[in-house]
Formats: sequence, C-alpha cells, structure tokens
Amino acid sequence: MKKNSQKNICVILSWPSHPENIGLVARAMNNTGYRYLRLVTDQPLSKTAYQTAVHSKQVLKNAQIFSQLSEAVRDVDVVFAAVARHRKNFPSLRFEDAVEKIVGFSPETRMGLVFGNERTGLVSEELRHSNFRFSIPQVQEQPSYNLAAAVLLTLFQVFLREAPKENKPEPKPVSRRKQKECIDLIANKLEKKDFIHQGNKEHVTDMLYDLFGRLAMTEKDQKLLLAIFSK
Amino acid sequence: MKKNSQKNICVILSWPSHPENIGLVARAMNNTGYRYLRLVTDQPLSKTAYQTAVHSKQVLKNAQIFSQLSEAVRDVDVVFAAVARHRKNFPSLRFEDAVEKIVGFSPETRMGLVFGNERTGLVSEELRHSNFRFSIPQVQEQPSYNLAAAVLLTLFQVFLREAPKENKPEPKPVSRRKQKECIDLIANKLEKKDFIHQGNKEHVTDMLYDLFGRLAMTEKDQKLLLAIFSK
Repeated sequence: MKKNSQKNICVILSWPSHPENIGLVARAMNNTGYRYLRLVTDQPLSKTAYQTAVHSKQVLKNAQIFSQLSEAVRDVDVVFAAVARHRKNFPSLRFEDAVEKIVGFSPETRMGLVFGNERTGLVSEELRHSNFRFSIPQVQEQPSYNLAAAVLLTLFQVFLREAPKENKPEPKPVSRRKQKECIDLIANKLEKKDFIHQGNKEHVTDMLYDLFGRLAMTEKDQKLLLAIFSK
Repeated sequence: MKKNSQKNICVILSWPSHPENIGLVARAMNNTGYRYLRLVTDQPLSKTAYQTAVHSKQVLKNAQIFSQLSEAVRDVDVVFAAVARHRKNFPSLRFEDAVEKIVGFSPETRMGLVFGNERTGLVSEELRHSNFRFSIPQVQEQPSYNLAAAVLLTLFQVFLREAPKENKPEPKPVSRRKQKECIDLIANKLEKKDFIHQGNKEHVTDMLYDLFGRLAMTEKDQKLLLAIFSK
C-alpha cells in the first residue's frame, strides 16, 4: 500500500498534556502513513515523547509547533474536530460519515484533524476553528478513548477506507478429480480398519466428503493428507 | 449501544512484557465493551498496569492468569491470532475477513483473540493454538502496531461491525416556502445595498439560491440568518 494515494491530512493536537501520547500519536501516524503533525503548545517536545515514538521519531522531528489553534489551521482548507461528547452549538457527524467526508474531498484539499487536551477535550473556542465535528463510537460514555487511541482509530479508518483492497484470493484447490481420489483413499483406509462398514458406509462416506470437501484442499493439503492416511 | 448483543470474546495476551500495555488493553476493552482478559505470564499484575487502565481497573481485577497459552485457550471454541507478518506454515486472513468471521460465529461461540509479546510477536508453537491468523493493515512493515494499538484496532473493528448503526438523521429543514422567504429577504437586502443590481441580478440570485440552499437550513439556521440580514 502506497502513501501517494493518501489524503493530504495533518494531525493537530491542541494543548496535549502527556508527552507519551504525542509519541504514540507519531507512531500511529507512521503506521497508517500520515506524516504531518502539528502541536499547539508552549512546551518543547520532551524526551518522553521521543521514547514512545518507536521508529517514528521523524514525524516528531518534522512536527510544527504553534502557540494557538487558529495559527495551526490557518493554511488548512477544512478542519475536522474530534469530540467525545455532544456539544450544544456544534453538532457532530457520525464517525463513519466523517470518514466518508474526509475520503470524499479532492486530493488537493488540505485537511486538519484536531484533537483536544486529554482531560478537557476541545473547548468551544477551539471548535470554532473546525468545519465539522465527529465522535468515535464507544460502548459507554466513560472512559473516553485515550488521546493516542482516538488519533489511531480515526487515521486507521481513513486509511482502511482509502487503501486499495489487498487482493488475497483463496489459494487454488486441486481439481475435484484429485480431491475425490484423496477422499476415496481415506475412505478406503477407514474401511480396511473397519471404521467404515456396511451398516454406516453411506452415511460416513457422505460425512467424509463434506468434512474434507470443506478444506477445499490445496496441493499442499492433499499431499499432507495422502501421507497421513498412507501410513 | 449495548453490551448484550456483543460477541463472547476474550482477549488473550501471551507473554506481554510491558505492564503499561496491559493497562491500555484493559482501557481499549472497556471502550469497546469487551470484558474478558486473559494473560499468559509468570508476573503478577503491576501497579503500572493499573495506572494506564484508566476507569478500567475492573477488567484487570477480573483478568485470569495462565502459565501457558494452551491453558488459556482450553475452554475457548475458536482462536484468532494476530500476526504482524506472514508466517510460512500459518497462512493468515485479511483483516476485514477475520472481522467478518468473528462477527459471523454464533452467539454461543467462545472466541479468543490472541496477541503476542511486544518484541517477538507470536511464535510458531503459539500459533498452533489458533484456528485462524490475521494481520492488521499498515502502510509499511516497520514499525508494527504497538500491542495495545493492535488490540484496540481489532476490537474496535468488531465493535463497529456489530454495533447497531446509530440513527442520526439530518435535522429537518424548514419548508421550501420559508427557505425561499429567507433567501428572498437576503437578496432584497443585498439589492438595497447595490450588491445586486440589474447587471448581475440573475446570476447573483442563482448563486444565493445555491449557497443558502446547500445549508438545507433548519429553523435555527433560518432565525439566525433572518436576524443577521435584518440588521
């Protein structure tokens, strides 16, 4: 899967308080192929952030620091803000609809995904800098998702929706003739051992055809089965 | 969204080495509504695990400890193992197919999702205790997802697929008659200010109808617009 088909997305963390989350966000971005991180903060990036950014230090090194959210979104075209709960003046999209909307914008659209402080989330003044809000589904209201988890789930869902479906066809089974030969050999062996006898032959043979049929046996499977039952 | 429609799933961590991950897994389980955690370990649960299990300590308290993976899966009916890379003797399902399979099993089926050690992943001897393997898509091979991230992404995807779709219809717009009254009032005001004049009237009126039409204005929107343009 390639990066170059990916949306022009930057992740914006507004006033994050736990440096380990910043590092985990960098790793989540690296896993899902997003590179642009912006931080609204008055703190320099700490050693702790670099420690949790396993194999993803470059994302942190390239991170841009802003003193206000309004500055961080200034050159972005459309902003999505993650909220954990309903906000009176700012209706939010369903998660799936937000993902569809993100995926739907033209490739040149610069998108910002904004996530708020771990404890407070995004406050109204921050929500004013967003075009759309969305919430990540969860079973119950508390606890909300951890900051890095929220970023990961959002990016992963966009990535899954964007990535070309991996083509992973079922491996080719051997021909029905070979499958039949193999099942017949098994039945034959079982008949010699009196597992199959006149009283159950029809029924057990049906069951064997079903059981081994469901394997849709590949050449490798067939060889293994033949070797087992030839013993 | 309710828990009682959820699959009978237990999360099994086989030889996790970082206690903070165990706590984060508990939180991810709590967020997505899964309660049964099993640990294969020779270590007692540490304070660090409880620290990262924000609002999710109950999951840790109820966690069952085993000394071997074979013991941990003994009373489970079907086991899915998460692998970060292809294993020679154990082909793996695409992530989406694994999720479909998990969702597809009957409600009484007890399922185990097994995740390996942070550094080594699951080794062959461990994979023998699984029915199916799956990999979580990522952009590039390195770094793999953090252990807690892998659990979160898997549970979230099953949860999303299982949860009844939240019914969130678009709010009702006011009738077209009222929308038209509102747009006409705006056009009228703009004409008085000479923004609209004979030379552009047709064109600008069309644009106004399009712009404000796209809002599909609700009663609240209409009131706000009327108030603004009445000034």
